[in-house]
Amino acid sequence: MLQAPPAVPGMSESEIDTPALLIDLDALEANLDTMAAILAPTGVRLRAHAKTHKSPVIAHLQAARGAIGQCVQKVAEAEVLAWGGVRDILVSNEVVGASKLARLAALARIATISVCVDADEQVAALEAAAAGARVTLTVLVEIDAGGARCGVAPGTAAVALARRVVASPHLRFGGIQAYHGSAQHLRTVAERRAAIAHASASAEQTVALLREAGIACPVVAGGGTGTFACEMASGIYNEIQAGSYIFMDADYGRNLDESGAPVSMFRQSLFVLATVMSAARPGVAVLDAGHKALAVDSGLPLVWQHPEWQYIDASDEHGKLAFDPNTQGPALGSKLRLVPGHCDPTVDRYDWYVGVRSGRVECLWPVAARGALT
Amino acid sequence: MLQAPPAVPGMSESEIDTPALLIDLDALEANLDTMAAILAPTGVRLRAHAKTHKSPVIAHLQAARGAIGQCVQKVAEAEVLAWGGVRDILVSNEVVGASKLARLAALARIATISVCVDADEQVAALEAAAAGARVTLTVLVEIDAGGARCGVAPGTAAVALARRVVASPHLRFGGIQAYHGSAQHLRTVAERRAAIAHASASAEQTVALLREAGIACPVVAGGGTGTFACEMASGIYNEIQAGSYIFMDADYGRNLDESGAPVSMFRQSLFVLATVMSAARPGVAVLDAGHKALAVDSGLPLVWQHPEWQYIDASDEHGKLAFDPNTQGPALGSKLRLVPGHCDPTVDRYDWYVGVRSGRVECLWPVAARGALT
Repeated sequence: MLQAPPAVPGMSESEIDTPALLIDLDALEANLDTMAAILAPTGVRLRAHAKTHKSPVIAHLQAARGAIGQCVQKVAEAEVLAWGGVRDILVSNEVVGASKLARLAALARIATISVCVDADEQVAALEAAAAGARVTLTVLVEIDAGGARCGVAPGTAAVALARRVVASPHLRFGGIQAYHGSAQHLRTVAERRAAIAHASASAEQTVALLREAGIACPVVAGGGTGTFACEMASGIYNEIQAGSYIFMDADYGRNLDESGAPVSMFRQSLFVLATVMSAARPGVAVLDAGHKALAVDSGLPLVWQHPEWQYIDASDEHGKLAFDPNTQGPALGSKLRLVPGHCDPTVDRYDWYVGVRSGRVECLWPVAARGALT
Repeated sequence: MLQAPPAVPGMSESEIDTPALLIDLDALEANLDTMAAILAPTGVRLRAHAKTHKSPVIAHLQAARGAIGQCVQKVAEAEVLAWGGVRDILVSNEVVGASKLARLAALARIATISVCVDADEQVAALEAAAAGARVTLTVLVEIDAGGARCGVAPGTAAVALARRVVASPHLRFGGIQAYHGSAQHLRTVAERRAAIAHASASAEQTVALLREAGIACPVVAGGGTGTFACEMASGIYNEIQAGSYIFMDADYGRNLDESGAPVSMFRQSLFVLATVMSAARPGVAVLDAGHKALAVDSGLPLVWQHPEWQYIDASDEHGKLAFDPNTQGPALGSKLRLVPGHCDPTVDRYDWYVGVRSGRVECLWPVAARGALT
């Protein structure tokens, strides 16, 4: 069952039912503008990652500022975007299984669809699916850019896979996917630069070998919110796949800039609004937002603008705030903004975004690809 | 958007699209029967916790085996159960805010509704909501049974709150809620017994003081899957609120019995079915089930019947399995059952249960109260 929206436009923020997923629209728009301004003079394209927002509405806001398309991780996410009018979608991930591939190929009738591979069998399965649907799919060969998760080894293994793609009549070789996920969360600029220097060298070597093999490589794709400046400066990457920059989260807020201060290029625009539902003991307030309302895999949430109130423990439906019992804590019934530890899976807990500006609800947007797991 | 079901009845398990939430129906039914058999001779009632299953279908299976009703944590969960025909529902939690209380009171027209309080203001707010809806709500006073989360102190504070309930014309004093959440996961029988001995003593003292005050206490409620045998044996508790026993999970599987062996009273009936989507390097297989498909707050999932394959890392859409590179790992495209680390929030990731028996899909049941956060 779809959940009822927790607000209606025009309400004040304090009237929103909780837990609710809030977007500060001014901050969101500032982030969209900042990324567009950074990329515009470079010629590097933005293919924004929809695994963060799961929303055709936000995809169109990104397109209006120059994004050339969207990335997703799942076929079900690609479906929601394509059905919502997004015309160029890369599944920046491997897709395995005949039923998923048939769904992906079917989408190529209404959008330009690209997908990644890291195995021979997958090229054959994609060719069969595309032939069956009488469409052409664009295929990127994923190389392991240092994350040691998916992707073939850079260099000759990638070239061999690209040859198979080129030899497949219903597939078009689109380039290489060289995303380094774990590098996004390295804390210092030096660490992130070193990781992406390795990724760039891997990509460069692969592109050179492809050229020797007579295979053009139109796209070298990768880069997230933590490292995109490194990929952008590499001279190798030409598509950036940042997603979280639109919202930010407590974990990205722990990344440091050149000066050793927390990065401040993007503003926090995503919040979970929670209510104090119990205040029965001194120094403790219990919120109505726990594991089911917030992803804690990258750390507990922070209380926005109240560093003196610490979210110390989550259970399924409760969050425990601790504060100095000699001070005034948040009152029973009061509502607080929390900064999620990790934006993407937190968004996945909700059916609705509540867009707020100047203390008022301005809009409701569905989290259209919530739970799009397949 | 509701997600499409990942299967249809009659399919073989290997045809189910992934990630999918599976119930082994034989194991589920065995667990339901086991709990009924344990409680029947004792006179202690089961009010099963729907925060685990979120499903009127399963609530009715429990009722058919003698459960007197259901617990929930959220008004939105109570709505889904009441709309699905469940006739006796306790919100085993505090409910704060006029709109939630109005929804709760409205439900009392179609079901018997009880709710917990731990603050004077809440008694007043509940009385106003019940009066406004011209209904009577049953109210349990929650005491802190040792979890240091919600609940007033046992004893005189609880009696004072009960007096306020008794004095409210649209409220009925139902008894006390004395649930000790964190005790459920204490590993040894001795630790769990000690925690519930404390909770029972707190409840007993409170009941005695209520009696002195002339207030009958029909219900003493608490107990989860980890400790219910202790509450059952206490002579104080008369309603047990276990939920996870129907499914179990990897974390409950680490609780030990008298002999020091893992508890084996209930069978694992809940699984996440996942597919190997990449196998590009020796000793590693990447699954299509990460944070969005599995709750990891109580530990990573286990691979069912394959202890030699270890799920070592989750990212949003990927799970990394490690195995001895000199052995045969799971093949690209193969499907594996995972035992979730924590059942309740894992269930909340899905729109559908796929019920399987003897390797075939027997039924699809909606996770009707998925995302019921408010």
